Amino acid sequence: MFITFEGPEGGGKSTQIKMLSQALEGQYSLTLTREPGGTTTGNKIRQIVLEDVSLDIEPLTEFLLYSASRSQLVREVIRPALQQGDIVLCDRYFDSSLAYQGFGRGLDLRFLQDVTWEATGGLRPHLTFLLDLQPEIGLERAAARGQFDRLEQADLQFHERVREGFLNLATAEPERFYVLDATRTPEELHAEILHVVQSTLVFRP
Amino acid sequence: MFITFEGPEGGGKSTQIKMLSQALEGQYSLTLTREPGGTTTGNKIRQIVLEDVSLDIEPLTEFLLYSASRSQLVREVIRPALQQGDIVLCDRYFDSSLAYQGFGRGLDLRFLQDVTWEATGGLRPHLTFLLDLQPEIGLERAAARGQFDRLEQADLQFHERVREGFLNLATAEPERFYVLDATRTPEELHAEILHVVQSTLVFRP
Repeated sequence: MFITFEGPEGGGKSTQIKMLSQALEGQYSLTLTREPGGTTTGNKIRQIVLEDVSLDIEPLTEFLLYSASRSQLVREVIRPALQQGDIVLCDRYFDSSLAYQGFGRGLDLRFLQDVTWEATGGLRPHLTFLLDLQPEIGLERAAARGQFDRLEQADLQFHERVREGFLNLATAEPERFYVLDATRTPEELHAEILHVVQSTLVFRP
Repeated sequence: MFITFEGPEGGGKSTQIKMLSQALEGQYSLTLTREPGGTTTGNKIRQIVLEDVSLDIEPLTEFLLYSASRSQLVREVIRPALQQGDIVLCDRYFDSSLAYQGFGRGLDLRFLQDVTWEATGGLRPHLTFLLDLQPEIGLERAAARGQFDRLEQADLQFHERVREGFLNLATAEPERFYVLDATRTPEELHAEILHVVQSTLVFRP
């Protein structure tokens, strides 16, 4: 089973991935990974897109870099892990590109989807948790942690478009998306996520 | 005018760009650049795809990284230079991706062309010099210079497919491509290239 976590910075994705993996380990073989990154090549790409804030990267360049990282991650990590029966938990996947570069930066969604299809070889998550949050709150939380990367420096309207983008994607695929209010406590969110994952696992061979 | 130089490593592209720029400078304002690279972001991408030979990069990842570098180069360097009336000389451009990742690695040409169209915003060179060379000779020359990067380490059959790819692209666009036998002396090649460029410049406003 391939599970992704989506939503803005400050929404608690890493906390939830950690709590879910702790709840599942022992019973299941797990692979934890993230985007961009997750491979040696991907981590070098991550440095370019997220860590070097002095670079003035064009939106399309940014999307192609994320897609390059994704292409490598799917082939090197996610597919092999799924083939050996692991549950894969991934912090961000293609929905982030559609929300940030598509809805947020205004790149053509059809084009983004075509590239995404090739980059992922058509591999879609079975389950996607969207930790939804008002941009103001997410940015405050991220700032409090000292985490202001490229995306977080952009303006509030951009983050509002991204949020709407995520919600649109969730509405379009209700069977895959599970939308959670990220202002709830980590423990409440975890209990709900674990319940959904366990219910899904029951119905899979 | 936008002029690109294509062909295998060891074909003398950099030498010819240097000789042509020396012949034109003073009369024309020139911009010299290269792929991958040519921008701060592009040079970081160049380090990933060419200089770190320990990375096992997937063909599609490689193509997306080249396209990311290209997207940035077109928007940050080539278009602004052309808009201010410069002659732009570029060492490799999208034909290299079609030849290496398409014909060489077997990625779908239609998909590569779609991404290239977006990455370049449809910007095609006015003139492309293909310095054509048997792979054996190019690889020997490159080895003699101590330049064995990722592409050069791959096998001879790959380089033969790449050469056929370049020749196919040239045949498909005879009005843009000018194919040269790269075994001729640098001076002979330069004289012919300069003649073609000057003839083309005469007919442009």
